[in-house]
Amino acid sequence: MKFTGRDIISIEDFSRKEIDYILQASQKMEPLASKGSDMLKGKILATLFFEPSTRTRLSFEAAMLKLGGSTIGFADADISSVKKGENLSDTIRTIENYAEAIALRHPLEGSARLAAEFSNVPILNAGSGAEEHPTQALMDLYTIKKEKGKIDNLKIALLGDLRYGRTVHSLASALSLYDIELFLISPKSLRMRKGLVNSIKNKISIIEDKNLEKILPEIDVLYVTRIQKERFPDPAEYSKVKGVYKIDINTIKAGKESLILLHPLPRLDEISAEIDKTPHAKYFQQVGNGIVVRMALLSLVLG
Amino acid sequence: MKFTGRDIISIEDFSRKEIDYILQASQKMEPLASKGSDMLKGKILATLFFEPSTRTRLSFEAAMLKLGGSTIGFADADISSVKKGENLSDTIRTIENYAEAIALRHPLEGSARLAAEFSNVPILNAGSGAEEHPTQALMDLYTIKKEKGKIDNLKIALLGDLRYGRTVHSLASALSLYDIELFLISPKSLRMRKGLVNSIKNKISIIEDKNLEKILPEIDVLYVTRIQKERFPDPAEYSKVKGVYKIDINTIKAGKESLILLHPLPRLDEISAEIDKTPHAKYFQQVGNGIVVRMALLSLVLG
Amino acid sequence: MKFTGRDIISIEDFSRKEIDYILQASQKMEPLASKGSDMLKGKILATLFFEPSTRTRLSFEAAMLKLGGSTIGFADADISSVKKGENLSDTIRTIENYAEAIALRHPLEGSARLAAEFSNVPILNAGSGAEEHPTQALMDLYTIKKEKGKIDNLKIALLGDLRYGRTVHSLASALSLYDIELFLISPKSLRMRKGLVNSIKNKISIIEDKNLEKILPEIDVLYVTRIQKERFPDPAEYSKVKGVYKIDINTIKAGKESLILLHPLPRLDEISAEIDKTPHAKYFQQVGNGIVVRMALLSLVLG
Repeated sequence: MKFTGRDIISIEDFSRKEIDYILQASQKMEPLASKGSDMLKGKILATLFFEPSTRTRLSFEAAMLKLGGSTIGFADADISSVKKGENLSDTIRTIENYAEAIALRHPLEGSARLAAEFSNVPILNAGSGAEEHPTQALMDLYTIKKEKGKIDNLKIALLGDLRYGRTVHSLASALSLYDIELFLISPKSLRMRKGLVNSIKNKISIIEDKNLEKILPEIDVLYVTRIQKERFPDPAEYSKVKGVYKIDINTIKAGKESLILLHPLPRLDEISAEIDKTPHAKYFQQVGNGIVVRMALLSLVLG
Repeated sequence: MKFTGRDIISIEDFSRKEIDYILQASQKMEPLASKGSDMLKGKILATLFFEPSTRTRLSFEAAMLKLGGSTIGFADADISSVKKGENLSDTIRTIENYAEAIALRHPLEGSARLAAEFSNVPILNAGSGAEEHPTQALMDLYTIKKEKGKIDNLKIALLGDLRYGRTVHSLASALSLYDIELFLISPKSLRMRKGLVNSIKNKISIIEDKNLEKILPEIDVLYVTRIQKERFPDPAEYSKVKGVYKIDINTIKAGKESLILLHPLPRLDEISAEIDKTPHAKYFQQVGNGIVVRMALLSLVLG
Repeated sequence: MKFTGRDIISIEDFSRKEIDYILQASQKMEPLASKGSDMLKGKILATLFFEPSTRTRLSFEAAMLKLGGSTIGFADADISSVKKGENLSDTIRTIENYAEAIALRHPLEGSARLAAEFSNVPILNAGSGAEEHPTQALMDLYTIKKEKGKIDNLKIALLGDLRYGRTVHSLASALSLYDIELFLISPKSLRMRKGLVNSIKNKISIIEDKNLEKILPEIDVLYVTRIQKERFPDPAEYSKVKGVYKIDINTIKAGKESLILLHPLPRLDEISAEIDKTPHAKYFQQVGNGIVVRMALLSLVLG
């Protein structure tokens, strides 16, 4: 399988075979993540974050550094030449001269795809609009596989904001390539968009509900999301739904002993801190897995 | 020729011989720019940007990284101790303890010269006030030479904001060392300052005009600039002149087949996107040339 | 003496023996600071600055780079996920997956201690609230020892804001482990907090005064601080005391010939620029010493 020079824009661009290959490559990165490597020495990753994201930016940078490469970039559109009115395609055609790969986060849907059309170096989508976050989906899959030994035959629930959260869109698409049962639990106003649900429905069984209690006893993985204030067009809408799901020690008692909780982070109060010490909590392992997955992606696209 | 420890403050500090030497050194950097090098391993470049500039900052950083060195710095005066009221000379006398060279961008004219007086490590002026941008001028020269095989005997026009644009000031000074004909095309309110024009006039032939059409058929290089809103003391003045020159496919037809277009970027609508795919467009090559020129400068001043 | 894995939170966590050991280790770093080293190759330091500080952040980064390691981080809470409401312990449990050590600056007292409780990697306190700045205290001690050949038997005065300045709190604690005489010179409203004064009084002789003139002729070290506007709850209080001490050439004449002046920087007008060229001025050497001290700390806690 050949990934050299390839863009990582949408999880939908990948077959199950390709995803499994990336997950295997990620596993091979585990020893390098602790002791470091010279694999990408002399190569530069540009991290262009037009929207702030400490977690994803630093994870990409750490992954590049662990492979012996180095990084340049910006963390904030305010300090970039965007302020002077430059369009994205010109920025990309500039930066491709400085770096062997570009990790891009941008508030507009379609931005990563557009960047890839103009760029001569691989674009890694680090989050575009409310649409896609493919590297997050890959580290979510990797975490499920690592913790459960498999992805097939699991019952997996996505909880919370399924409308504006790009993480769950990419993850739901990815999961639809596996033989799983998917539960989409959200308030009515935050249900996953019809188009995406329909395309997934063709492949796997989906149950949509606003009630977590009913399905909690039977699921293997509960993927909790933050209801993201910053994505709501209307603050009044946000007030109605914030805090509608809160997982605490009591809630979790109704779940299987082997139930694992994931969360893309940052969390607010969707998962209470008392859960952190239980064996259910895997969200900090999940964020750690971002390093090996991104190391794998960088080493694959940079040959 | 000895450059070790030297500051790069103004293009006027360099003879033609020295500039030719830098251009040659830049050419030798081409292979290292793609495969990397350990030439400056263990050395640190500080990039102190008191004014935002993604392009120039990342170009300096990529150049240092390609030579095996590393970088520290800030992209924005707001996050620096300037906020606490520190003066520039104290900042410099602090940072010189942390780094083997300093690339400085600062809004005030004379700032780079002042910094060099206090600093024990080489200062590379990455843009000071509306005055100087010597590394940009060097990459402009390098691009002309690379694309045209020579600089002498060319007809070169600078177009747009010749008053506030520091890029064209440094470039015009540099070009005056070569045997060229220079055309300065701008609206009346944006003409190049008298002092600079006079000093150049002593060395080469200059024609000033506000009309591009007339001279377009005979020139070899057209250097287009953005009219920079942020440099106008009076917004009303800006409205009068913005968009006064726009180069599109039709405009360019009147030029030679071999005419090349340069632009320091970012561009707004001075050059229409349809030009990008024509062989006239060399502005993205130009920004790429910034890497080798800055690699050459860093390797020269750091010995 | 074993420092591997240890947090550097408060100067009060260290015995005199341990501090002397760190100062010795710092001295051994002097040659590596100029020629670089591969000691921490493959290791990453995260610099998490929830409060801006160019000086301390770049000093930590330069120290890590000089040891062959690399750095990730942010310089400003605004561009971090704190904006999305994440609490500090979650941020730490995320970042510990990306880096082998974390340098943390945070506006709240107790923040570094809290971070250390959650973190599996060493936390280096780069300034917490108005309370602690242990690495600054260590470089202050190192400078005194380097310039004076010893710390014991000196007469040392701390001048200015002894109430809100975290630097002097950590330094006073550290000095109380040595056999010195301490003078605390400040306006009444900026006197050092009673609790700290009392705990130091048990160990060494302290004289508190608002008058510098009287004691100036007999002291060996004068540690001047900026009165920090940003730490005053009430701006009117600030106006009353700003500029109350100004050291100029005339002031200094009353001091010993061997008197040295230190300052944590940035300075405003507490020390006039004319002093800089005198042999009394050691504040730029002091900031330079930050590199070797932080190199020593990083190499000690990272094994």
